Amino acid sequence: MHEITQRILAGDVRGAARAITCIENDYPERGQILRELFPHTGRAKLIGITGTPGAGKSSLVDCLIGYLRLLGLKIGVVAVDPTSPFTGGALLGDRVRMQNHALDPGVFIRSMGTRGSLGGLSSNTRDAVRVLDAYGCEVVLIETVGVGQSELDVMTIADTTIVVLNPGGGDSVQAFKAGIMEIADLFVINKADLPGVDKLQIEVEQMLDLVKHDAPWRPPIVRTISTENHGMSELWAEAERHFRFLQESGRLTEQRSRHLQDEVLEIVRDHIYRRMLRKMQGGAYAAEMNRVAEREQDPCSTAETIVRDLFGHSR
Amino acid sequence: MHEITQRILAGDVRGAARAITCIENDYPERGQILRELFPHTGRAKLIGITGTPGAGKSSLVDCLIGYLRLLGLKIGVVAVDPTSPFTGGALLGDRVRMQNHALDPGVFIRSMGTRGSLGGLSSNTRDAVRVLDAYGCEVVLIETVGVGQSELDVMTIADTTIVVLNPGGGDSVQAFKAGIMEIADLFVINKADLPGVDKLQIEVEQMLDLVKHDAPWRPPIVRTISTENHGMSELWAEAERHFRFLQESGRLTEQRSRHLQDEVLEIVRDHIYRRMLRKMQGGAYAAEMNRVAEREQDPCSTAETIVRDLFGHSR
Repeated sequence: MHEITQRILAGDVRGAARAITCIENDYPERGQILRELFPHTGRAKLIGITGTPGAGKSSLVDCLIGYLRLLGLKIGVVAVDPTSPFTGGALLGDRVRMQNHALDPGVFIRSMGTRGSLGGLSSNTRDAVRVLDAYGCEVVLIETVGVGQSELDVMTIADTTIVVLNPGGGDSVQAFKAGIMEIADLFVINKADLPGVDKLQIEVEQMLDLVKHDAPWRPPIVRTISTENHGMSELWAEAERHFRFLQESGRLTEQRSRHLQDEVLEIVRDHIYRRMLRKMQGGAYAAEMNRVAEREQDPCSTAETIVRDLFGHSR
Repeated sequence: MHEITQRILAGDVRGAARAITCIENDYPERGQILRELFPHTGRAKLIGITGTPGAGKSSLVDCLIGYLRLLGLKIGVVAVDPTSPFTGGALLGDRVRMQNHALDPGVFIRSMGTRGSLGGLSSNTRDAVRVLDAYGCEVVLIETVGVGQSELDVMTIADTTIVVLNPGGGDSVQAFKAGIMEIADLFVINKADLPGVDKLQIEVEQMLDLVKHDAPWRPPIVRTISTENHGMSELWAEAERHFRFLQESGRLTEQRSRHLQDEVLEIVRDHIYRRMLRKMQGGAYAAEMNRVAEREQDPCSTAETIVRDLFGHSR
């Protein structure tokens, strides 16, 4: 067993931190550690928190952590920021707020940005969550900055997805556009002391009538004011209720099994792609690639030639 | 030669429309048509137009079409809306505005949404653009609804990428966050009659100092008021200037060649993935997939077993 695995299972926080660094940088030991941790995962409740930028997600998460700590729960937070794929930089300034819990050993907070293109944010996040699960976090919060496609992908990891909205600004329509209504298990109207709360609530209810009218779970709407620490017990009660629904209906097992299977497909695809890139970087298919660059052959025919070769003419 | 190919090359608008339908639905003739069209592509200028929702992109595109028609150019527009991957629905209401040009035979407008997951929006858009190129459009505008990752991917198709911003609302910072500054070749400040224009211009200039300080092309900033048809000649002059820069510096050929090569890799990857899915749907690896669903084996080990089998133990 890898030394890092041992440390994580012994509850060593620096072991967990090092494992996530291995994941982010795709170090060779990543595979071994995750393989060894796997039997120790599946115990944490995975809560996704998403919503439009500026909806106050960070401060809500901050508040929720405080509440969950009062309940004596060990908490992990993975804050996901799919910033520029070009600079690799991360604008995680508002994460600073979460430093409120920096000295609490019962809270582990980690930010993840896009690094490299292979592997990808989604699988890195999933593996980081797994580390925190094995490390003993009873709840892992997965927070995203925005509501783009990458965020939707990330949310497939969660058992329960919380969507944070704000009164005013046509927030609900935006949420609908981004496909977020479909993945929400629970809505939070944060900043519920601002005008327009009732209007927003009605809009969301109407959207739910449309999208979830025959679903066995209708997402509840909880109002919070995170700046005043207001609404956390209601929020958590609804999250717990959703988790019980998942357990009792058999959906939890089903959903998690499906995620594991999807993950296999993803890893296989990545493997194959890397294998192909390696081969091409070694000089294979240089002539074909030149022909396509010179527009002498179309990309599709070129691709077919390569596939035929990769699989040795067999179908 | 396929009948649809012949019709497109003869300038038949319904041929072009049918080809795009074939692409969207991934009909079997897609491959043949695109292969046959390929030698007739590469002539159109491909202009991407993106920006935050509400920046007035649709009405700007509407205006720009009008201007380009005055110049006597034949125009294609592909409006890309990566809406919900779940419902498959498209909220393309604002496309209605573009119906201004519905009766003009010199303008071909088509909306594309996310259909299916294989193939993907980006490759469908690329192929639709190719159809319009072969059909004889001298300029093809590729417009996206938002600025998420899918939109950034789509923009790699364009020769020139225009980013539309609005005064007020911290638009420039948002743009920066989404990685959009890096792909912009030209900025438009639309609604330039609103307060805050100078401030926004300064902000964008500052961002450019940061991101593009040593780049051979510094994106110009053009002010427009599309509701008053204002600024179109300036906008097009700058777009033309950028295109000349690409041509004279050799970047146009280089960039397009790289895109073609990337496309080959993408198609190969899709091919391989489909092949794997077919095999699995045929019952292969059912035992392995069950084991992972039951948590008896971790996803990574399972994936390795499958890869080893797919490639017949060879490395």
